[in-house]
Amino acid sequence: MRMAELSRESGVPVATIKYYQREGLLPPGELTSPNQARYGPAHVRRLKLVRALLEIGGLTVAAVAEVLAAIDDPGISTHKVLGLAQHGLPMPTREVTAEDRAWAMGRIEDIARQRGWQVHPELPVVESLVGVLCALRQVGHEWVLEALDRYAEAAASLAEADVTALGRLDATEAVVEGSVVGTVLGDALFAALRRMAHAEVSRRKFSA
Amino acid sequence: MRMAELSRESGVPVATIKYYQREGLLPPGELTSPNQARYGPAHVRRLKLVRALLEIGGLTVAAVAEVLAAIDDPGISTHKVLGLAQHGLPMPTREVTAEDRAWAMGRIEDIARQRGWQVHPELPVVESLVGVLCALRQVGHEWVLEALDRYAEAAASLAEADVTALGRLDATEAVVEGSVVGTVLGDALFAALRRMAHAEVSRRKFSA
Repeated sequence: MRMAELSRESGVPVATIKYYQREGLLPPGELTSPNQARYGPAHVRRLKLVRALLEIGGLTVAAVAEVLAAIDDPGISTHKVLGLAQHGLPMPTREVTAEDRAWAMGRIEDIARQRGWQVHPELPVVESLVGVLCALRQVGHEWVLEALDRYAEAAASLAEADVTALGRLDATEAVVEGSVVGTVLGDALFAALRRMAHAEVSRRKFSA
Repeated sequence: MRMAELSRESGVPVATIKYYQREGLLPPGELTSPNQARYGPAHVRRLKLVRALLEIGGLTVAAVAEVLAAIDDPGISTHKVLGLAQHGLPMPTREVTAEDRAWAMGRIEDIARQRGWQVHPELPVVESLVGVLCALRQVGHEWVLEALDRYAEAAASLAEADVTALGRLDATEAVVEGSVVGTVLGDALFAALRRMAHAEVSRRKFSA
């Protein structure tokens, strides 16, 4: 297909496709004349993935390039590729004191032990979790952590459902795209459902 | 107590306390001389609530004033006050077509029927949920919605735990503060735990 059709198929505007090409995020098409190139289904898949990583995931161009290189390396497992994509997702962190950090890491290790999770302290998600735990402690709302086991259990249940559904997708591109879309939009989905549930429970308990 | 002690007790800087007073978010102290006022525990409670609503919740000053007026009105139930605070929380929304909206509302009503939830379409959280569902559809990742029941069930379980813990707090101020802190930091807590769980399930399924 020509550039115009690639744009229609992928839903990505031509100017955006050319930007991705300049940034090395989309391989060139097969040249059919000095000024015309032909593209195939692999370009459509790659384009959709690039757009999802940049626009939904909020990854930097450099992080996207790293994920694409990993996908194209047959020696790298899908788990490693997914890890790269996930670690590229921006997550809030905050400055914490050494004492608060030690306390938070203790809570995280407790949860990990209970659930049989591996914790790699250098991962961005662990840093983000440390920040949230310390924030709850700093503002005097540690009661939220009474339900930490229940939060972890719910997270495990949803992760199982998400990853099982991902495993049914075919190409590695689709799995990586799905993991980022499912993580980011899944956060928003769950946050909205949790607020609806809060309203419902509040009505039962506090409307007297 | 004097202003300096109020600042120490509440952890809010004097300049910030004066700003809240100018905005009508903190009642004046009892004047003990033309230039000195005395403050009590009610001021400390109110200050911590105002700071949580503005800084953690991201509510506007006008929305905070509305929540405070509701707290001070003995005719308004805790459920209504919590609703005001929750509706003031900024939530992402997006433009959707009439057809996409009708489809999303259908999914939301299904979930509400299954779980016995009341849905008020005018609430910001419903609009936000419509936006997320439509976004998943637009980017071709409706598979995330296969687990919608499971997401809703997990949301209900966490909401029950959160609101039960809130119910153990004493003053209405503490309950409202707790609801906003628990909602906003609870979202961040759950998002981080969900990512850790994803990494764990991915390791089991995709590391071959």
